[in-house]
Amino acid sequence: MQGGEIDRLIAALGRLPGLGPRSARRAVLDMVRKRGRLMDPLRKALDEVAEHARECTICGNIDTIDPCAVCADHKRDPSLLCVVADVGDLWALERAKVFKGRYHVLGGLLSAMDGVRPEDLHIEQLVARASDAAVAEVVLATDMTVDGQTTAHYVADRLVEAKVVVSGLAHGVPVGGELDYLDDGTIAAALKARHSL
Amino acid sequence: MQGGEIDRLIAALGRLPGLGPRSARRAVLDMVRKRGRLMDPLRKALDEVAEHARECTICGNIDTIDPCAVCADHKRDPSLLCVVADVGDLWALERAKVFKGRYHVLGGLLSAMDGVRPEDLHIEQLVARASDAAVAEVVLATDMTVDGQTTAHYVADRLVEAKVVVSGLAHGVPVGGELDYLDDGTIAAALKARHSL
Repeated sequence: MQGGEIDRLIAALGRLPGLGPRSARRAVLDMVRKRGRLMDPLRKALDEVAEHARECTICGNIDTIDPCAVCADHKRDPSLLCVVADVGDLWALERAKVFKGRYHVLGGLLSAMDGVRPEDLHIEQLVARASDAAVAEVVLATDMTVDGQTTAHYVADRLVEAKVVVSGLAHGVPVGGELDYLDDGTIAAALKARHSL
Repeated sequence: MQGGEIDRLIAALGRLPGLGPRSARRAVLDMVRKRGRLMDPLRKALDEVAEHARECTICGNIDTIDPCAVCADHKRDPSLLCVVADVGDLWALERAKVFKGRYHVLGGLLSAMDGVRPEDLHIEQLVARASDAAVAEVVLATDMTVDGQTTAHYVADRLVEAKVVVSGLAHGVPVGGELDYLDDGTIAAALKARHSL
């Protein structure tokens, strides 16, 4: 059967989110067969990321430079700050290529269930950044879940002292969304926020 | 947004079978956060496998030693040879911990569709191995698909000259299988091969 090293690689891959033992085995077989196309680029990229990836000390984004590319980009609007729970959310917003301000990663969401308290999140730093005279508006872009909205309300309260405009993402029908498949809450929100055409 | 190195790692991971861009992004974020638990073991295992993994020159298994652990194991029955299409099938049989002979990996299945011809598979080597006086039986363990069974028939014909017993896996109801969800072919095969209790 496969040797110890191969078993260890399957186990290491299988611990990644989204990969079980079966797909890890398939991936390892494919990598051994296609070294030049699969395994070597992966090793090289892993080495580079392991060596250089770090959290941006300003916003909490993960990048290979610090400050991260967003914080270092002088074409970004310094008056706009977008608050997200996680780096994955920041990346999702960046893929939409619409937001031209900077970010602040909270590092999670308040959760009574999981015992996440305000002091576990980067809220103090947010209030400090938002208190800078250059910042005019803070967009709260947390999930539309109970924890996400609880966090947004808490953060909005805390931002009162920073004297900035606090806004949130619009609720409504997702682009491409079919009414028949939407939940009642979304339909109600979309109706309430209707606009003239 | 994420820097060039991180994008390259996401792309390299996303090329593995079973991982799309979304899960690759999640995996990269998790790895950066849990270096000691996720990233470092993966890098180490990848380096070891990249350096040592090779095809067994006897059976075609992938292992970090050559001959592979199965071929090198003297407690294995030298009179039994199990023919599989791919290394993944060999590993699946090994996980079942029942087969105590050795293997022969064909390297694929005959396929008119994909243009795989007998000379593309390790059939000559199989006939040579099976012709060894020590080998008494060859078990054909190819998939129960059209290509798998075509290959099994072709290999069985070629093995006539090797003067060995040629056998195949039993058809029937999978363990835990519910009759209501089984295809007609399997039910027919299981009925035909019924045995007294």
